[in-house]
Amino acid sequence: MGPKLEATLARVDADLEAAIGRLAELVAIPSVSNEPDGEPGIRRAALWLAEALSDLGIAARVVETGGHPVVLGHTGAPGAHGGPRVLFYGHYDVQPAAPLEAWRTPPFEATRMRGPDGSERIVGRGVSDSKGQLWSVVEALRAWLAVHGGLPDGIILLFEGEEESGSQSLAGFIERHRDELVCDVAFISDSDMWSPDTPAITSRLKGLLHERVTIVAPNPDLHSGQFGGVAVNPLRVLSKILASIHDDDGRIAIPGFYDGVHPVPAAVLDQWRRLDASALLAGIDTGGDAGERGYSAIERMWARPAIDFNGIHGGNAGPGERSVLPGSVTARLSFRLVGDQDPARVRELFREFVRSRLPQGCMVEFHGIEGTSAVTVREDSPFVAATARALEAEWGNPAVIKASGGTVPAVGYLAGILGVDCVTTGFILADDAIHAPNEKYDIRCFHKGIRSWVRVLDAVLEDRA
Amino acid sequence: MGPKLEATLARVDADLEAAIGRLAELVAIPSVSNEPDGEPGIRRAALWLAEALSDLGIAARVVETGGHPVVLGHTGAPGAHGGPRVLFYGHYDVQPAAPLEAWRTPPFEATRMRGPDGSERIVGRGVSDSKGQLWSVVEALRAWLAVHGGLPDGIILLFEGEEESGSQSLAGFIERHRDELVCDVAFISDSDMWSPDTPAITSRLKGLLHERVTIVAPNPDLHSGQFGGVAVNPLRVLSKILASIHDDDGRIAIPGFYDGVHPVPAAVLDQWRRLDASALLAGIDTGGDAGERGYSAIERMWARPAIDFNGIHGGNAGPGERSVLPGSVTARLSFRLVGDQDPARVRELFREFVRSRLPQGCMVEFHGIEGTSAVTVREDSPFVAATARALEAEWGNPAVIKASGGTVPAVGYLAGILGVDCVTTGFILADDAIHAPNEKYDIRCFHKGIRSWVRVLDAVLEDRA
Repeated sequence: MGPKLEATLARVDADLEAAIGRLAELVAIPSVSNEPDGEPGIRRAALWLAEALSDLGIAARVVETGGHPVVLGHTGAPGAHGGPRVLFYGHYDVQPAAPLEAWRTPPFEATRMRGPDGSERIVGRGVSDSKGQLWSVVEALRAWLAVHGGLPDGIILLFEGEEESGSQSLAGFIERHRDELVCDVAFISDSDMWSPDTPAITSRLKGLLHERVTIVAPNPDLHSGQFGGVAVNPLRVLSKILASIHDDDGRIAIPGFYDGVHPVPAAVLDQWRRLDASALLAGIDTGGDAGERGYSAIERMWARPAIDFNGIHGGNAGPGERSVLPGSVTARLSFRLVGDQDPARVRELFREFVRSRLPQGCMVEFHGIEGTSAVTVREDSPFVAATARALEAEWGNPAVIKASGGTVPAVGYLAGILGVDCVTTGFILADDAIHAPNEKYDIRCFHKGIRSWVRVLDAVLEDRA
Repeated sequence: MGPKLEATLARVDADLEAAIGRLAELVAIPSVSNEPDGEPGIRRAALWLAEALSDLGIAARVVETGGHPVVLGHTGAPGAHGGPRVLFYGHYDVQPAAPLEAWRTPPFEATRMRGPDGSERIVGRGVSDSKGQLWSVVEALRAWLAVHGGLPDGIILLFEGEEESGSQSLAGFIERHRDELVCDVAFISDSDMWSPDTPAITSRLKGLLHERVTIVAPNPDLHSGQFGGVAVNPLRVLSKILASIHDDDGRIAIPGFYDGVHPVPAAVLDQWRRLDASALLAGIDTGGDAGERGYSAIERMWARPAIDFNGIHGGNAGPGERSVLPGSVTARLSFRLVGDQDPARVRELFREFVRSRLPQGCMVEFHGIEGTSAVTVREDSPFVAATARALEAEWGNPAVIKASGGTVPAVGYLAGILGVDCVTTGFILADDAIHAPNEKYDIRCFHKGIRSWVRVLDAVLEDRA
């Protein structure tokens, strides 16, 4: 390890408390992307980030997209013999905090506390997904700057504000700004570790499609005693439809749904089979036969498409009982896609499936946002190898090359539009409760995450030399 | 028609505007019985009614029940040779107004307007179910008092505040106060007309049972991308359970559910077959095959038990999308019972049905309130005959002896505990939107309803003579 690297890592260590304080400022900004109320928080977070980058001497600006803005930063242009141009992607928007009553501390306040094992953590919405992740990159650059007296040329920072609402403006943004986004490698700082001591690089990400379906009865709310036996109940209709989506083996019964789903290559499967899924499951109870029969837990999570029901609402919400036939009821579904499944086609197949099951007189309303396809990144990229080396040096264990059931649309857009190698890594743990109440980020992950990014940058730039 | 009766009816006509004003005062009190927030409104309504009865010289008081209070009023005790003791039952509590956004006028404001056919109506929560109904009896007594100079002895007024939340305190109240409730006939002023021109007496009422079922996943809210393929989704579980309650013929698939359901006697069926169901359906769209195959609409509504889904809530409620596996989801069901179906047994059969379909690791929570059995009232009572005569005199058409899919627990309790003939009649129309937004009561129904009660009282007292 060179003395400069050593000094930079030492600088990270010395500056940790201040870094935690800065992350807490970011967490305190309620930048919820998929609620209308979130707009002011989104704006504040974008401006705050642009300022933070400017403070490091990075040319930063808030770029309008039509949706939520992108924060874009550049160090100097690389010279004629310059090294690799390196893009770092992160997102500053967060999931809504609901249900609020399930939080033990205020969601938009970074609360420092000890976990069950005594280790320190920060609790707050978005602290792990993905503000802590994004901020680790910035802190790595800050330490670098302090020790080297300047930042490497050719660094691009792209911080998105719509990841949690489907990254709807990102493809257009990348298209419009492709000239200033040209790079040799893109690091996506928004994924998880294999286990608390084993880092990971994520090479497969599922696509994602959201659909909202509302069954509207031919009549408005009715008295269920008067008309229950004769008027159609949209909740009964919707229950039947939802219940028919999965067959008894957990397979999706929508005709054509599996078109474009390919078997996982034997070599990859073999690698996966050597992994211990229990680390991935993080204590989650997997009883109840939820998944598709005939596939291991890892295959289901990483390589099999799925449909899940994310919410349902209709009729009496209490607290008391009401004898009502609801006039309508709405369910929210998400589709996780793999391989070459086409989001637009899957959407149409689903809608046709619902329409074909609609009783006479009922209407259906669909509401969907643009979906994303699955992405598989080439695993033999030299940048993947350099990253794996850097991660192993920091964590002491070789990085697992894994997949994810989650979706980071940015990976698909950056790979697809820029044709660049995307290296997805990050330091979330399976028990971080992302998207859930009491989301947390271990201070150890934050600390070693910053150190990891210093090492990754060093390794990537070293490759040039 | 005697001159006194004629004068009393004329008095009703002359006093109509003032009566509407008094009803509007009652409608303006938000006496919602099945929401914790309703308590103050319940109290105000009970006191208001007791005062209104006192103003008529009736000995009235608000009686505590442990739940919502009963307003109880008595005229003088009948002498040794006194006529029939007559009890009038009504309820002053109302359904919640939710969903508020569906109301075109404030729900707790009696708004007078014209309907599509130009006739006048009053719009407001509870105006037809059942404040207008209850108040018609009071206005009939007011007119009687004005013309006769006094009220008949032996009149009992029992106004309940828990009808919309299952009348849970009523049986105990009747037990405790049976000595002062002894009567020869009980009139239940809480039912509907056959059609706008044809009155009705309701001889069969269904029983009612509410159940709230919450499926709790073994895990709290999870990221559906991470864990959707392996962790159980309680909404998927609940959908399957709800979907399995009705078979493809609309029959209830819960074993034992139909125990105690008897065929309708041929003579009664024959009478029903001569009725035109379209009046009963009031323009409701009955497409979509909601009901039990093999039974007419009237049979389903009046004589077949049913299970309906009144509400469902769980997971993401929006406005944005969230990739969440909900930790729990809750559905509300109501059971309409007939014949000798036992509410407690039906509840247990249902719970066993749910438990037997629960995947490993899931838990279920049930919440139910005491149910009521179905009631069939003897149709050959002389009071039924007297009432039918009085109604025909007012409306010009013979009263239909019908049944109801709705439930008035009071009928069961009064008949069961006091052993008294119960005559259930009222002037609600099928399009009054009871339990729904924009509930209304036609001024014609209110007016002729008051006149009807004057005639009924006259007919019943005349029978004595």
